[in-house]
Amino acid sequence: MTSLRPNAPPLRILLGPGPSECAPEVLAALARPTLGHLDPLFLSLMDEVRAGLRAAYRTENELAFPISGTGTAGMEAVLVNLLERDDAALVGVAGYFGARLAEIARRVGARVTEVRGEWGRALSPDDMRRAAGGKRFKILALVHGETSTGVVADLAAMRAVADELGALLVADCVTTLGGMPLEIDAWGVDGAYAGTQKCLAAPAGLSPVTLSARALASVAARKTPITSWYFDLALVKSYWSQDRAYHHTAPIQNIYALHEALRLLFDEGLAARWQRHARHARALWAGLTQMGLALLVPEAERLVPLTAVRVPTGIDEARVRRFLLERYSLEIGGGLGELKGRIWRIGLMGAGSKRANVELVLSALRAALAEQGWTAAADPLPAVHAAYANA
Amino acid sequence: MTSLRPNAPPLRILLGPGPSECAPEVLAALARPTLGHLDPLFLSLMDEVRAGLRAAYRTENELAFPISGTGTAGMEAVLVNLLERDDAALVGVAGYFGARLAEIARRVGARVTEVRGEWGRALSPDDMRRAAGGKRFKILALVHGETSTGVVADLAAMRAVADELGALLVADCVTTLGGMPLEIDAWGVDGAYAGTQKCLAAPAGLSPVTLSARALASVAARKTPITSWYFDLALVKSYWSQDRAYHHTAPIQNIYALHEALRLLFDEGLAARWQRHARHARALWAGLTQMGLALLVPEAERLVPLTAVRVPTGIDEARVRRFLLERYSLEIGGGLGELKGRIWRIGLMGAGSKRANVELVLSALRAALAEQGWTAAADPLPAVHAAYANA
Repeated sequence: MTSLRPNAPPLRILLGPGPSECAPEVLAALARPTLGHLDPLFLSLMDEVRAGLRAAYRTENELAFPISGTGTAGMEAVLVNLLERDDAALVGVAGYFGARLAEIARRVGARVTEVRGEWGRALSPDDMRRAAGGKRFKILALVHGETSTGVVADLAAMRAVADELGALLVADCVTTLGGMPLEIDAWGVDGAYAGTQKCLAAPAGLSPVTLSARALASVAARKTPITSWYFDLALVKSYWSQDRAYHHTAPIQNIYALHEALRLLFDEGLAARWQRHARHARALWAGLTQMGLALLVPEAERLVPLTAVRVPTGIDEARVRRFLLERYSLEIGGGLGELKGRIWRIGLMGAGSKRANVELVLSALRAALAEQGWTAAADPLPAVHAAYANA
Repeated sequence: MTSLRPNAPPLRILLGPGPSECAPEVLAALARPTLGHLDPLFLSLMDEVRAGLRAAYRTENELAFPISGTGTAGMEAVLVNLLERDDAALVGVAGYFGARLAEIARRVGARVTEVRGEWGRALSPDDMRRAAGGKRFKILALVHGETSTGVVADLAAMRAVADELGALLVADCVTTLGGMPLEIDAWGVDGAYAGTQKCLAAPAGLSPVTLSARALASVAARKTPITSWYFDLALVKSYWSQDRAYHHTAPIQNIYALHEALRLLFDEGLAARWQRHARHARALWAGLTQMGLALLVPEAERLVPLTAVRVPTGIDEARVRRFLLERYSLEIGGGLGELKGRIWRIGLMGAGSKRANVELVLSALRAALAEQGWTAAADPLPAVHAAYANA
């Protein structure tokens, strides 16, 4: 007969691309007893989560709720609702998640024009215009914070391009929601999805999505039914709205956790949360640079919650990560796709965005690199202290 | 600025169609600290979960893992992989979830033949044969435990029909996995999916799926790509197998909870778990009948974990449920679809399948019915005691 041992995971310091560590209050919320998914108390909680997501996304959109799946489920949900077979989609691809956007749009049957860019640089509005070649598109989709490269996109500038193309603007906000400025309404983003396991400091398993009124009108005007039932946002919306029409059994404890994560976000203040992430990221950048490590992305295009660091020549990058995990119980990420083996990805997200982690990861990296004979150009701490003094 | 109050859900006694209460050990597992989704310790845990699911499903299938979504996500995942546009699907529809199977198969583009049956009765192999009309089908799909009616299907008998039709046999095991006999290999089920929030006593949010070698061969022989990327089981399988190919960020804490739920299942023993569910269900049936309440489903076709009870004439069924929730913090379910307003659904699932709950729900129902002037035909307790004495 099968028998399993109890799982007793050690405490990790999670400074990779996500999941980030959960806030302790969020872990406590996860362990609260189950309510029925149609219990009046749970329905109230759902309303609070919707209100919280609207505030976090900075939108008045009626449609704002979590999909019961991970960030990729949110990506698929937005695309499968907005796109029909043979619709034209212009997709920015300068990293792993941009490529995934293009792939899912193709699966839905859209005619996809990829706008290819260097991994580690932002695509410009002119890159988009050139690739569009004067044609019209149903959507312009791109990644706001490209977790594979550490690049942030200028969504407000992309809105102007989308207007020229007659397109809805779709943005992947998995790594940016709650971690750096994101203005769904002010920037005119029509469709967005996010993750909970990054800057919100909740566990993975939900994907907050939002659609503008214009995007909803486009869904209502579809000529063909949505091929997915699970991701049919009109049905999910009926469940999350006052209709309470049964669609699926919400993952109750994940909703508790998201609610608690949002509560902590507003306790801190959204702008304060963004500033905290920026302060610690800048200190990290200063320290890494001072040590003599090169950052992949120019500062103006750099994602705040996740930093890509070039692996110095001759260094076995996987051995560095193993060293950090084994000696410090500290996780950072390796590269994905064409950056595999060439970068590390250091995330300072949610509860993990704090000074103790900045100084610890620098200290641990020095030890891991020294173990392979690489010597830091200088002690990073004075630069870190200076960054905090100026913050 | 938005501000949220902490969520402090009261303890509910969850005797509806699910979610059932989580075992306390499972709630504790949920609150354990996050591991990275590629952490070697987490990868070991994934392997244990796969082994546990194989044992719970009574299968040697290589493909057995949880989809990162709820039971409906599992349903969609199995159908979208097995069906291509214009494939013929024979679907048993004698309840709400059978109708959902047919609807999702249509969304995928299959030509669906529905085998309609009375809600509250099992479809027979001959019902299937008649509807098939001598034609061949890609799949024969039906619900093993129809949660909307409280009926269980005879899957072994359906295997013979599937063989005649040249079809793969697909079964919805959302409510049966871990709660009553289910023999994927012995019965020749090719595709199955389940829920975690029923007889496994874990939170909702994952859907264990399994496919037979024959089903996998059918997926490999597809002429068109799978329209869903999130539910593409070949990709998810690469993530769950030794390749560890990144697909999505697993909901770490939900996996902890499922692992713990499986650990408890094997500690108790699978057969013992089935017997426990049967023992308490029979005691409930005896008590309800003794009180003078009618059960919807004949005993030979009755689902063990969920019992459908007819609402007596003149009783406001929603008022009964409100009474139970407000006075006892006890939840039972109402009817769905065409049984709305006509039945209650009482679940004794997972950690909730115990004598205390049987006697409490009978006692509470008596009070709720008495409040509307309905008097029980007899005290149910002697019948309950007799049922336990004979168990």
